[in-house]
Amino acid sequence: MLNFTYYNPTRIIFGKGTISQVGSQAAGFGTKVLLHYGSGSIKKNGVYDQVTASLKAAGLNVIELGGVVPNPRLSLVREGIEICKREGIELILAVGGGSVIDSAKAIGFGSCLPEGEDVWDDYYMKGDCTVKETLPLGVVLTIPAAGSESSTGTVITNAEKGLKRAVNSETIVAKFAIMDPETNYTLPAYQTACGASDILAHLQERYFTMEQHNDLSDRLLESAMRNVIANAPLALRHPKEYRYRAELMWTGTIAHNNLLDRGRIGDWASHDIEHELSGMYDIAHGAGLAIIFPAWMKYVHNTNIDRFIQYAIRVWDVSLPVEDKEGVFTAAVDRLEAFYRSIGMPVRLSEADIGPENLRKMAETAMIGSSHLGNFKKLYADDIEKIYRLAL
Amino acid sequence: MLNFTYYNPTRIIFGKGTISQVGSQAAGFGTKVLLHYGSGSIKKNGVYDQVTASLKAAGLNVIELGGVVPNPRLSLVREGIEICKREGIELILAVGGGSVIDSAKAIGFGSCLPEGEDVWDDYYMKGDCTVKETLPLGVVLTIPAAGSESSTGTVITNAEKGLKRAVNSETIVAKFAIMDPETNYTLPAYQTACGASDILAHLQERYFTMEQHNDLSDRLLESAMRNVIANAPLALRHPKEYRYRAELMWTGTIAHNNLLDRGRIGDWASHDIEHELSGMYDIAHGAGLAIIFPAWMKYVHNTNIDRFIQYAIRVWDVSLPVEDKEGVFTAAVDRLEAFYRSIGMPVRLSEADIGPENLRKMAETAMIGSSHLGNFKKLYADDIEKIYRLAL
Repeated sequence: MLNFTYYNPTRIIFGKGTISQVGSQAAGFGTKVLLHYGSGSIKKNGVYDQVTASLKAAGLNVIELGGVVPNPRLSLVREGIEICKREGIELILAVGGGSVIDSAKAIGFGSCLPEGEDVWDDYYMKGDCTVKETLPLGVVLTIPAAGSESSTGTVITNAEKGLKRAVNSETIVAKFAIMDPETNYTLPAYQTACGASDILAHLQERYFTMEQHNDLSDRLLESAMRNVIANAPLALRHPKEYRYRAELMWTGTIAHNNLLDRGRIGDWASHDIEHELSGMYDIAHGAGLAIIFPAWMKYVHNTNIDRFIQYAIRVWDVSLPVEDKEGVFTAAVDRLEAFYRSIGMPVRLSEADIGPENLRKMAETAMIGSSHLGNFKKLYADDIEKIYRLAL
Repeated sequence: MLNFTYYNPTRIIFGKGTISQVGSQAAGFGTKVLLHYGSGSIKKNGVYDQVTASLKAAGLNVIELGGVVPNPRLSLVREGIEICKREGIELILAVGGGSVIDSAKAIGFGSCLPEGEDVWDDYYMKGDCTVKETLPLGVVLTIPAAGSESSTGTVITNAEKGLKRAVNSETIVAKFAIMDPETNYTLPAYQTACGASDILAHLQERYFTMEQHNDLSDRLLESAMRNVIANAPLALRHPKEYRYRAELMWTGTIAHNNLLDRGRIGDWASHDIEHELSGMYDIAHGAGLAIIFPAWMKYVHNTNIDRFIQYAIRVWDVSLPVEDKEGVFTAAVDRLEAFYRSIGMPVRLSEADIGPENLRKMAETAMIGSSHLGNFKKLYADDIEKIYRLAL
């Protein structure tokens, strides 16, 4: 077990009817709020009305910036930064899923940068970096998936350059996150499934480590994986059943608040490899992960097959002779792919209408700014291309 | 799943050599520190020297108050409050296990009470209550057990009255907790086992709930229980093996930081019933819990035997026909008792030299200030007496 620190001060407010608390929570940070959201689904499902009523009741001065798209764009982030500076915004309230929250995080610290520093060039293009200051962030979560509501991360797409990059910093963690699973009742099946795939991926990225003797993290991750696998198909079958929505929503937060991987370094290559896919083809992140993860497993499993044996037995209940390690591994990947298919996710590039033409280019682009991808097995452009080919 | 909030801002600093960070962490809160500790074991195992060297290097002004005993006393709390007020203490640093931390929490908020309020009468005797203000608390943990290093709770014993009572409040959560598993290498086997028993009890108290559809919490709790069961015997067999000590220490924190029971109300009757035992006989809390828990299970299991069936299958791998619910339940309790015995814990009152003479009295005392104990099954004096008798 590696030495670690853990600090996660997001106040989670979870459950039915909790959106009515957003005004009183927000009021603790000032009176000028930037209400940040996506393409307008919150205006159809009633969330926008609930949020604005609560903000109004708390006497807050609200400026709106909608229009966040999946794989949120740097261009809108720059627009948000301008608004925050011009209007003297004191709190950013992200109402939506991971894309909206990630965009809000970028606007939040982008608004506080010293003269001469650029949010993209000096932060996203440099990977992990210390963010010194940010505007406080509040969240009303409407899509369980990215875990951004209490994570240290934000991923932004520079559409002009076709690049998708992340910043991780303790400073940008949300101050509060309001999570009402009822807001998910109208979430389309495909988006629900993409969210479940993203949650499972966050757990798998943490699970595949070369660090040994880190039992508790293993066990907690296995539990959370099993919970996604059990509840995602039920949430799809019974979209307005609170319990399944609630399980996915809470698991999505736990999967990505960094508690479950203390004492180890996770992998994260599958995320990086997927980012190129969704950066170039604009497919949903969760769908891309369902395509990449099995291919990644097939490519890297012999680096430490015992870790995959444990995954097979404890997560997928594979009951085969452990001497046949390749057989046990194959059974696990078969079950993972069957799970993805059962929730309507693609598991091959061809199922997402992506051919072989850009694989080399994406492999090379994925390496820009990185010496390698992944930690379980360090990957370079040739490896990444092979993984894309395994996914064809 | 019940609505819930979750907020836990303790900064955890975990691993080898981390005690050297205590000075820099403490310096963030002021220059006058009350160093609070127990009977002096930290002076034998080197922890005291490490802590004071780091505090000195940070230029802090340290006043010491040692002498905390297991089942920490109100009398020492009152002494600490006097010191804090007189000396203008700005941070309390608890170096030790749960007793020291609980004592420090009581001193911390006791020092900030308005004129006319008493730490015992107005807080501990009133159970859950809102604490408005406290001195900040830092922790150097040396015993994995109580989870007090990032919990909302503190339990204090009023020796004059023979009462042991708790306060739970978000305000008193530690600001930081430094946890070096190497400090446990010299922990005696009995104390190690008592700690493991306390950790397992914290998980079991959370597990036995009447709330349904709270899958993730169930699964995380089962994982953590399995981790205690797997690692405690190994830590006893290999007391200087880092990995087993680290597993117990981290599990002890996770077991009690309230993340694993969101969406439910736990039981906690076994803790309350045990508090009378250790309040009257001064036996170790973990040993008392090993005696009480099996008896409590035998008394309450038919309230919702399906919950015990799940516990039997998922925690203890009981593989028997589920139709024979009583058989499955009995097998689980047998395995729990075998586990306790394997780590040297008593499982009957007679093994701790406690006879039947005070059982009624303890049952009645346990009820003082409470309408009932427990939530899985509400218990009254007659029930509590029967549980004590089942434990004879």
